[in-house]
Amino acid sequence: MGEAVPPTMRAAVLRSVKDLAVEERPVPEPGPREVLIQVRSVGTCGSDVHYYEHGRIGDFVVRAPLVLGHEASGVVVGRGAGATRHEVGQRVSMEPGVPCFTCAQCRAGRYNLCPDMRFFATPPIDGAFCEYVVLHEEFAHPVPDSLSDDAAALLEPLSVGVWSSQKARVGPGTRVLVTGAGPIGLVALQAARAFGAAEVVVTDVLPQRLETARALGATTVDVAETSLADAGVEADVLIECSGFAPAIGEAIRRVRRAGRVVLVGMGGDEIPLPLAHVQSFEIEVTGTFRYANTWPTAIALAAGGEVDLDRLATHHFGLDGAEQALTALARDENTIKAMVHPYDHEEESR
Amino acid sequence: MGEAVPPTMRAAVLRSVKDLAVEERPVPEPGPREVLIQVRSVGTCGSDVHYYEHGRIGDFVVRAPLVLGHEASGVVVGRGAGATRHEVGQRVSMEPGVPCFTCAQCRAGRYNLCPDMRFFATPPIDGAFCEYVVLHEEFAHPVPDSLSDDAAALLEPLSVGVWSSQKARVGPGTRVLVTGAGPIGLVALQAARAFGAAEVVVTDVLPQRLETARALGATTVDVAETSLADAGVEADVLIECSGFAPAIGEAIRRVRRAGRVVLVGMGGDEIPLPLAHVQSFEIEVTGTFRYANTWPTAIALAAGGEVDLDRLATHHFGLDGAEQALTALARDENTIKAMVHPYDHEEESR
Amino acid sequence: MGEAVPPTMRAAVLRSVKDLAVEERPVPEPGPREVLIQVRSVGTCGSDVHYYEHGRIGDFVVRAPLVLGHEASGVVVGRGAGATRHEVGQRVSMEPGVPCFTCAQCRAGRYNLCPDMRFFATPPIDGAFCEYVVLHEEFAHPVPDSLSDDAAALLEPLSVGVWSSQKARVGPGTRVLVTGAGPIGLVALQAARAFGAAEVVVTDVLPQRLETARALGATTVDVAETSLADAGVEADVLIECSGFAPAIGEAIRRVRRAGRVVLVGMGGDEIPLPLAHVQSFEIEVTGTFRYANTWPTAIALAAGGEVDLDRLATHHFGLDGAEQALTALARDENTIKAMVHPYDHEEESR
Amino acid sequence: MGEAVPPTMRAAVLRSVKDLAVEERPVPEPGPREVLIQVRSVGTCGSDVHYYEHGRIGDFVVRAPLVLGHEASGVVVGRGAGATRHEVGQRVSMEPGVPCFTCAQCRAGRYNLCPDMRFFATPPIDGAFCEYVVLHEEFAHPVPDSLSDDAAALLEPLSVGVWSSQKARVGPGTRVLVTGAGPIGLVALQAARAFGAAEVVVTDVLPQRLETARALGATTVDVAETSLADAGVEADVLIECSGFAPAIGEAIRRVRRAGRVVLVGMGGDEIPLPLAHVQSFEIEVTGTFRYANTWPTAIALAAGGEVDLDRLATHHFGLDGAEQALTALARDENTIKAMVHPYDHEEESR
Repeated sequence: MGEAVPPTMRAAVLRSVKDLAVEERPVPEPGPREVLIQVRSVGTCGSDVHYYEHGRIGDFVVRAPLVLGHEASGVVVGRGAGATRHEVGQRVSMEPGVPCFTCAQCRAGRYNLCPDMRFFATPPIDGAFCEYVVLHEEFAHPVPDSLSDDAAALLEPLSVGVWSSQKARVGPGTRVLVTGAGPIGLVALQAARAFGAAEVVVTDVLPQRLETARALGATTVDVAETSLADAGVEADVLIECSGFAPAIGEAIRRVRRAGRVVLVGMGGDEIPLPLAHVQSFEIEVTGTFRYANTWPTAIALAAGGEVDLDRLATHHFGLDGAEQALTALARDENTIKAMVHPYDHEEESR
Repeated sequence: MGEAVPPTMRAAVLRSVKDLAVEERPVPEPGPREVLIQVRSVGTCGSDVHYYEHGRIGDFVVRAPLVLGHEASGVVVGRGAGATRHEVGQRVSMEPGVPCFTCAQCRAGRYNLCPDMRFFATPPIDGAFCEYVVLHEEFAHPVPDSLSDDAAALLEPLSVGVWSSQKARVGPGTRVLVTGAGPIGLVALQAARAFGAAEVVVTDVLPQRLETARALGATTVDVAETSLADAGVEADVLIECSGFAPAIGEAIRRVRRAGRVVLVGMGGDEIPLPLAHVQSFEIEVTGTFRYANTWPTAIALAAGGEVDLDRLATHHFGLDGAEQALTALARDENTIKAMVHPYDHEEESR
Repeated sequence: MGEAVPPTMRAAVLRSVKDLAVEERPVPEPGPREVLIQVRSVGTCGSDVHYYEHGRIGDFVVRAPLVLGHEASGVVVGRGAGATRHEVGQRVSMEPGVPCFTCAQCRAGRYNLCPDMRFFATPPIDGAFCEYVVLHEEFAHPVPDSLSDDAAALLEPLSVGVWSSQKARVGPGTRVLVTGAGPIGLVALQAARAFGAAEVVVTDVLPQRLETARALGATTVDVAETSLADAGVEADVLIECSGFAPAIGEAIRRVRRAGRVVLVGMGGDEIPLPLAHVQSFEIEVTGTFRYANTWPTAIALAAGGEVDLDRLATHHFGLDGAEQALTALARDENTIKAMVHPYDHEEESR
Repeated sequence: MGEAVPPTMRAAVLRSVKDLAVEERPVPEPGPREVLIQVRSVGTCGSDVHYYEHGRIGDFVVRAPLVLGHEASGVVVGRGAGATRHEVGQRVSMEPGVPCFTCAQCRAGRYNLCPDMRFFATPPIDGAFCEYVVLHEEFAHPVPDSLSDDAAALLEPLSVGVWSSQKARVGPGTRVLVTGAGPIGLVALQAARAFGAAEVVVTDVLPQRLETARALGATTVDVAETSLADAGVEADVLIECSGFAPAIGEAIRRVRRAGRVVLVGMGGDEIPLPLAHVQSFEIEVTGTFRYANTWPTAIALAAGGEVDLDRLATHHFGLDGAEQALTALARDENTIKAMVHPYDHEEESR
């Protein structure tokens, strides 16, 4: 990292719906306790695709040019005032949401619920589809050399999986049902297995996704062909990752007495739930909103080999290919994660 | 209790829908570890009324003559083999559901979820609208002299309230919203206050019920006139006791980040819930199904004066008036609890 | 508060062991997100007395002049940059320890365990025996008018009591044993009752302290005369507030199966514990170190009348009487809390 | 299992200290809900050895001839009244303590704390060093064919390990310190790893034991040569399995803020603990007393290959060799588990 940081950098900017362009922007200055990070790898998330296609997610509206990307890894190349945690040259995985630290939610350890969270690629905060970003040093988590840049970036979705298993209290012997074998379902599956789940049943309707789930240790049910009831599924825990509202009720009915349901997939509002079943079985239903304090666990799982993140990185692009990354899934349903490598100028698609 | 137990007794028997008659039946024999209890007071519950009016509750169908009543107190007058916990003459409150004790749910301390539960007044198990019942000695809870027979009987609905506050983790400072000021709402309110709730907001549409709630320490909102949002309600915990499905969603939206929702009222199935709010606020939703291990707490609260159960016993009948007790609410919406006193032959209505 | 803040103030400074003098010091400037508070009332704590008498507590050594006092209330008279929570004139109770907010303990909601905590009257951080202090705005908790200045100051020891009941999971029906009826025992007692404890047994050897405990609702045992075993004490929870090591073992033996023990009193290290009892009864033993997130609960209890803090404020002094406050207990064993009123120049002893 | 059950059987009976003899005894009759089990494999536990050598453990005194052995597996060969869970021929692992089921501890799910527990090989209840035993059907846990008889027997010590990890809340990423690499330390180690522990440090002073621990995935410290502090150990969780009182304090000092300590090893009473450290770090200390509801988890771990129980079965004897099994460790410090195979008449030592 002996090279000097340049004054400007390239950034892939969403200017309006389906209009992404690489622009030259100033390299940001790290503020107090912030580090400057040269971005190495960024995963493309469904939320990035949604902003690209619709310009909004619920109340979050893209009103000004926005840099997308929040699943990111990189290398520390500069430090702001009071930032002493890292040496320059440290490889880090980025936790992309920095809370206010001092509100009641933050002080209670639930910083993911901070009303003043500043989260990468959520208007008006820019993300990581660019060469350099700044981040609070405590949210730049050092990673061991054994983790690739892609794996370090994908600790972010793995954190979603870890959080879901924590909320669901998955442990040794737990029987888990994961609905949906997209990227989130696959990290939920891997996290559940790493938490000791005795069996993880994963559902989907796409054979290729189910095959990946099986390769990662799941039992699978193709719900286009068989109902969960007919498949004889009974679970201690349901981790809902499909976001497909009509299927949630059927899945909840497969949960045993005193079981748990964790909603990870974003469904619409006003979803009908089988409340008589929830009540008579005293099932606990909750949802996850991002995550809190998950990186140490996610790093331990990835470094220990309990999860395989590199397998999820199916497509690769340079910064000029960011738009292709955002449309990769639409073009190829076998896409799990399209990665963007902002600093890798030569490479366009691997 | 020097008097001998007679061979037969009077029992109010539901023979078919809206057909209740007092019959002469043999006094039951206490089995191993059971006690014979002379019944002193029995509260009338909405489920009793429902069986009386419809002959079924969901999958539970009255196929043979059934004795109703499961909120009961009495005096131990006999002991079966191995029953050593009580002396004859001990006044007791009856926990009306006896589980199998040995299944996985029972062994885990969740005996309310035992699939083989035998529960008073739930087909085909008879209840307590009669002069004598038998009960496992560990479910016949001694009560101090300071508790009236009515209060001892109403420890059963209080247990529902205690269980709801335990599930909701109500403690000092918690802001609680109780929807519905019927008998269950009123015990949920009293339990929440005894658990230390800083404020309990109770909703209903009947002015008399709201007045009772206020007398028991609640702040009230008449939701026929004002929405919860307009009333500025924000709660840490929602205890849903109305069973009125269309209102559940609005109430859940008043719950703060990381709050809890406990469904006590029996709604229908497939209730639409605001899942996006549940998820983004990481609210926990669960339901209560009866209760487990609540009597010691309920007795402590009633004996310590933290709750007022006698106030709920608004109407009184002898066994011949059991049918009147079941229709009391339909005739007088100010009815909270219509009590039946099986052994009190002279008394018909106080 | 229309009056201007002066450039200097009076402060009672501990210069060396048993050498306290009132000095003129500059009024501090509030930093970012800090408020300037005019101090109205400060309680004297055992730790203040210990610093005064010994110049150290364990590894914390008074190496430079130190202002004592960390149980404090006052009025906001100025605001630093970005401090918007309070209007000038707001009466506040001070939470006297401000953590770093960003370390792993802070992010997990355990800010009381932050290694970089800055705590009033703990070397080298000055306390509140002075006319003005600065404090992070989120740690200056607004209090309602119904709370006196003394009660607002004594929310700090009440927080110790609240934390101990939270750690011990005290709830309705819990039987609590509090060993020691000094100031901490009395707030632990009051908190336990407010958390719903069915019975609180308090021990001590001083009749006056036991009388105060009884007046606050305790059952008492004079352990100079009767052993806990002879008194028939059995508890679900032990809250140890005596710091008297030889008595801890006997008290733990009175805790039932699956009970909890919370050590609040500071004992020495290497205390012999009855581990065979702890193990065969699976008792949980832990200690409290200050508190986290307790002020909202403490304010709710004090404002709701569940606890009586004014009763603890037995002696009153002005700033010139700070030394007398520190020696009040040594002179009069009926002293519970000696309060210092820094701004109340005229008053020396009430 | 077509063969008839004979009227008598052989049993190894402890007649007095160090006096064990094989006697002919009647085969027991299964009572209601009990099954008759032909014993296939029994592990020898330190408590068996202690009864053999000293005739007592604390208050439990061998006053009449006693059959030892409580780590047992076998085959169901008969069923008492109402026992319907198993077919004759079912291979089972025995949970050796049957509680009363109905007391307050049992009803709360803590049946291991039942005061009326009947536990194999604990005076006056006979154990499994014999050809046939009877057991409540719910405590005879079916095992898959993939588990050997020895592994099925050793689910009992594994349950001790599972319980310790549950009490310690071990999960992915947890850093665990296990003190003592005897049989209990080795199952605690294996359980902790199966619960997802990031690192398990195991201590002992015997090189062979440490080698086994390393083979099972531990990092080891020979505490005869290096102190834990010098070895740089810091742990989230301490699972104490050495029972060596002088070492407990040093181990507790290696536990981080908000960490947990679980005492599994039986130490004496009145052990000095570093309470100032426990308090200032808010460490939770508890002990395990047997286990509750652990068999499903233990079976899942053993069947899934996460733990290796067969490796622990280092020595094998027939019933005539039971005394040799009890003295195996004294003769060979490399002994982990000496197994007794009661029905295996031919075999004396493998």
